[in-house]
Amino acid sequence: MTTQPVDVEPAVESARRQKTRERLMDAAFDVFAEQGVHAASIEAVTERAGFTRGAFYSNFASKEELFFALAERENGVRLDRLQEGIDIIFPTLATPVESLDIEAVAEIVDRFMLLQPNDRHWCIVESEFRTLALRSPEVAARYIDYETRIDTRLARLLEEAVGTVGLRFTIDSLQATRIITTLAQQATYDAILAGPDVATDDLARANARRVLPAVLLGLTEPVA
Amino acid sequence: MTTQPVDVEPAVESARRQKTRERLMDAAFDVFAEQGVHAASIEAVTERAGFTRGAFYSNFASKEELFFALAERENGVRLDRLQEGIDIIFPTLATPVESLDIEAVAEIVDRFMLLQPNDRHWCIVESEFRTLALRSPEVAARYIDYETRIDTRLARLLEEAVGTVGLRFTIDSLQATRIITTLAQQATYDAILAGPDVATDDLARANARRVLPAVLLGLTEPVA
Repeated sequence: MTTQPVDVEPAVESARRQKTRERLMDAAFDVFAEQGVHAASIEAVTERAGFTRGAFYSNFASKEELFFALAERENGVRLDRLQEGIDIIFPTLATPVESLDIEAVAEIVDRFMLLQPNDRHWCIVESEFRTLALRSPEVAARYIDYETRIDTRLARLLEEAVGTVGLRFTIDSLQATRIITTLAQQATYDAILAGPDVATDDLARANARRVLPAVLLGLTEPVA
Repeated sequence: MTTQPVDVEPAVESARRQKTRERLMDAAFDVFAEQGVHAASIEAVTERAGFTRGAFYSNFASKEELFFALAERENGVRLDRLQEGIDIIFPTLATPVESLDIEAVAEIVDRFMLLQPNDRHWCIVESEFRTLALRSPEVAARYIDYETRIDTRLARLLEEAVGTVGLRFTIDSLQATRIITTLAQQATYDAILAGPDVATDDLARANARRVLPAVLLGLTEPVA
């Protein structure tokens, strides 16, 4: 390795830097979930991660910037799981398109939801951050950018998913995607509000199953 | 009046009490909107209203109870305006049911939205309160009760509204109502996030117009 110091060192440095960023994001998620996004201090995050404030600021300009990096990572996982669902679930479907009734769509939605990670903590953290964004024009502008970027990626996946079963959206696919993500989020909020004694994920899935199939069928039509 | 002291005095007392409650709710809405629901103290509310802490606690057990009273009042106004819309707008429609395409539905949605009061501050306050509820099982339980009560009243109005144009929901009307309120709220959030330089109400209406007609048509069918 010592024969190529100029090429290798930046790679090592970059890997170390990425590891620091990951640890800060892990710590931030824990602290945000425990204390709330508003109450969480940068000190609490760095202390949890075992780093100095200096390490924090050499990686993120602010708590907001850390949130957006965390949000990219969390939503990236969710998009990857959705892609896995498309790759794994659709080839197993024997159902021809014409028999895609609401019950069949509900089964598919359910299988996709089962692939998603536990959403309780992330949903609370994201909700708190968005609520803060409602009061800060600067954060709001960045929040919209972030949301649009995620939804654009999601829209492509959803177009592929409905296309696979011979359907297409009757409205703009980004618009349809926003409707679906809003309702899926609400399904999780309702599950969290139902209290600590219920299994949030199971209830969120049951809530989504009651809502999403009708909306998906309502916003799509057969391609043929 | 002095001839019927037993009957009149409770009525006078009750009117005075109601006036005190209204003033506390007005003050709370202002303080919640300015400082945020979490940061707002009972002291700040009573000071704004010109009352003592004693007056507060003889009317409301807590900040949460005051929020729910305020929420009943705010949503009551919105439901009344919706009823007005049904009474005023539908009789003017020349459109027969069979020509109710997406553009015609969009026009109707737009006219209904124009009747609604300015939603920016209320939407932020409600969002903050719901976010707090996500972390407090006790508040969450009361939040769900309140939301279900409002949505049940709204569901009856929406059933009447779609029935008037010869449609009915293809899913449970309470479920359809939850979908519509969630998406209408999101339309307002997106308008607020778009920044202080835009007219929030106009943008919220434009956002709702892009989303609600397709969903309304997707979740209804002709009665005939």
